[in-house]
Amino acid sequence: MIEETPQRTELSELGEFGLIDHLTKEIELINPSSKVGVGDDAAVIDNTGFQTLVSVDLLVEGVHFDLTYMPFRHLGYKAAVVNFSDIAAMNGTPKQIIVGLAVSNRFPVEAIEEIYEGLTTACKKYKVDLVGGDTTSSISGLFLSITVIGQAKEDAICYRKGASANDLLCVSGDLGGAYMGLLLLEREKAVYKANPAMQPDLDGYDYVLERQLKPEARMDIVDKLKVVDIKPTSMIDISDGLASEILHLCKASALGCRIYEDKIPIDPMTFSVAEEFNLTPTIAALNGGEDYELLFSISQSDYEKIRGIADITVIGHFTEDTNCFLITTDEQAIPLMAQGWDGLKKQK
Amino acid sequence: MIEETPQRTELSELGEFGLIDHLTKEIELINPSSKVGVGDDAAVIDNTGFQTLVSVDLLVEGVHFDLTYMPFRHLGYKAAVVNFSDIAAMNGTPKQIIVGLAVSNRFPVEAIEEIYEGLTTACKKYKVDLVGGDTTSSISGLFLSITVIGQAKEDAICYRKGASANDLLCVSGDLGGAYMGLLLLEREKAVYKANPAMQPDLDGYDYVLERQLKPEARMDIVDKLKVVDIKPTSMIDISDGLASEILHLCKASALGCRIYEDKIPIDPMTFSVAEEFNLTPTIAALNGGEDYELLFSISQSDYEKIRGIADITVIGHFTEDTNCFLITTDEQAIPLMAQGWDGLKKQK
Repeated sequence: MIEETPQRTELSELGEFGLIDHLTKEIELINPSSKVGVGDDAAVIDNTGFQTLVSVDLLVEGVHFDLTYMPFRHLGYKAAVVNFSDIAAMNGTPKQIIVGLAVSNRFPVEAIEEIYEGLTTACKKYKVDLVGGDTTSSISGLFLSITVIGQAKEDAICYRKGASANDLLCVSGDLGGAYMGLLLLEREKAVYKANPAMQPDLDGYDYVLERQLKPEARMDIVDKLKVVDIKPTSMIDISDGLASEILHLCKASALGCRIYEDKIPIDPMTFSVAEEFNLTPTIAALNGGEDYELLFSISQSDYEKIRGIADITVIGHFTEDTNCFLITTDEQAIPLMAQGWDGLKKQK
Repeated sequence: MIEETPQRTELSELGEFGLIDHLTKEIELINPSSKVGVGDDAAVIDNTGFQTLVSVDLLVEGVHFDLTYMPFRHLGYKAAVVNFSDIAAMNGTPKQIIVGLAVSNRFPVEAIEEIYEGLTTACKKYKVDLVGGDTTSSISGLFLSITVIGQAKEDAICYRKGASANDLLCVSGDLGGAYMGLLLLEREKAVYKANPAMQPDLDGYDYVLERQLKPEARMDIVDKLKVVDIKPTSMIDISDGLASEILHLCKASALGCRIYEDKIPIDPMTFSVAEEFNLTPTIAALNGGEDYELLFSISQSDYEKIRGIADITVIGHFTEDTNCFLITTDEQAIPLMAQGWDGLKKQK
């Protein structure tokens, strides 16, 4: 399961400047706003006429990823995409990233190259420029810090706040898959540890594995909403789990909500893997994180416009009262609670 | 020497969202360009009419700082300032920072609070807004990733390249002090380890200790150059040591240089501490890093304008030939070599 790096060049052979040159020498800038990229004290970005959106995400080995089953290339790809998703959640377009990378000397240059391959593959796909970074040592482990810079017209930006009572809550795609992928990978890792001769049994699980290892940012949804002239009244991306994100939106707009269990979109494979693990699929969708779908609200008057867009599901609505309820298939109202992923609580 | 944190609140008591709320609740935005700060998927920055400058620096425990003698508050301050220095080196003005912080659970909330106190103290002093961040766990150690966003008018930006032969090379302030501060702290740490009852002997070393523990970004120099209407023909900040930075500038402009040993500004205390450690003060100035002074070039025709500015020293000039020489006090020409700090080679 561990990606092999047959050639091994020590980091110290290249040094910091040599490594940065080596990793960035083929990077070409594609956005007109990316005036100057890697190679000076700062990157230069020309955003005249647009608002700049900026966000940072840290990915820490052993906390956010496990190199036993996460290939370096996928790690780089995912690190970029989860940042693009933050810009999508503001209704903006990602334009540049800056990469901070700290690695211990247990990693060869080839591993770092693969991370950069993942980063640049994601950048090409999303038309984003890698414009700078800092690469250094760590005493142990691998740390990735990605800062993303995006653009949006001032009146297009969607915040977490801004929704009104009765606005419809919508999600893109389907939920819970990334978490099921994680459970599968953890299971196979345990099997492998117990008996390294055992081959991992991951056949037929492609969809949920891809949800975990190679997520995508829903820029397509941002574009489709623009085409039908809908500006969400509030928006967030689903990184920590649906329940946690809904509560963020409710808190930001000082509203409550009703979410309908039978409306939550869940892929059949997520369903069957959840059953394999004796989990309720709804719980996986509510509390499993890392789906990177968009959760947003629209005015009821936009409902007809949204109906025609594939891959968007209305799952409930905001309420004037600040109670947040999940209405189950047997019509019970259960208070929504955030039991999603928490980077700090995980260590307990 | 270790800063005490008498009260200890576990990170897990607050959780990620609780901690971010706690750390950022009193942050007020002061720059008109900082439209929206902490609390959404991205910060919103309105840079209309200006170019955006962006840079990231990682600070890794055990590589860039040692918590035995670096108080958390100073760590936060320094982390912010070294990023401001990158923007100064582009002839720009820092406006916003975004903070990525990964900590293991050996750190209590109070330690993180102190880091934020340092960050916000620096932000207030330099009129910079802290507009976002990501706070998470690490398996071990403390990692800080600071992304700084600055502004400059397009024609004001100074790059590493752009110099011409015969342009004068100038530095601000004095050099080598931060490295002497580091050597002193390392010496006292070794004494303390051997005998914890011994009190550290740091009296009378204030200047070099402050250079190491609480450096400043030379925004004042950027301002003074503007006042006398000088735009440097190339510029960089001195983070890795004078020799290394000079070679960066020479390489970027495809030039060589002559630097005069007797012109390199060295504080008397740096001089005496260097002698205490049996080091040549010039070597400390050339190869000791972390002074965060500015190294820049100006056209010879600007010499009269610069003469009146305190704290700027002309140390040499660029040459058409690409040889880089230090001319010693006894008029020998020694090839300049970068033996500065290298974040990746240090581990060897």
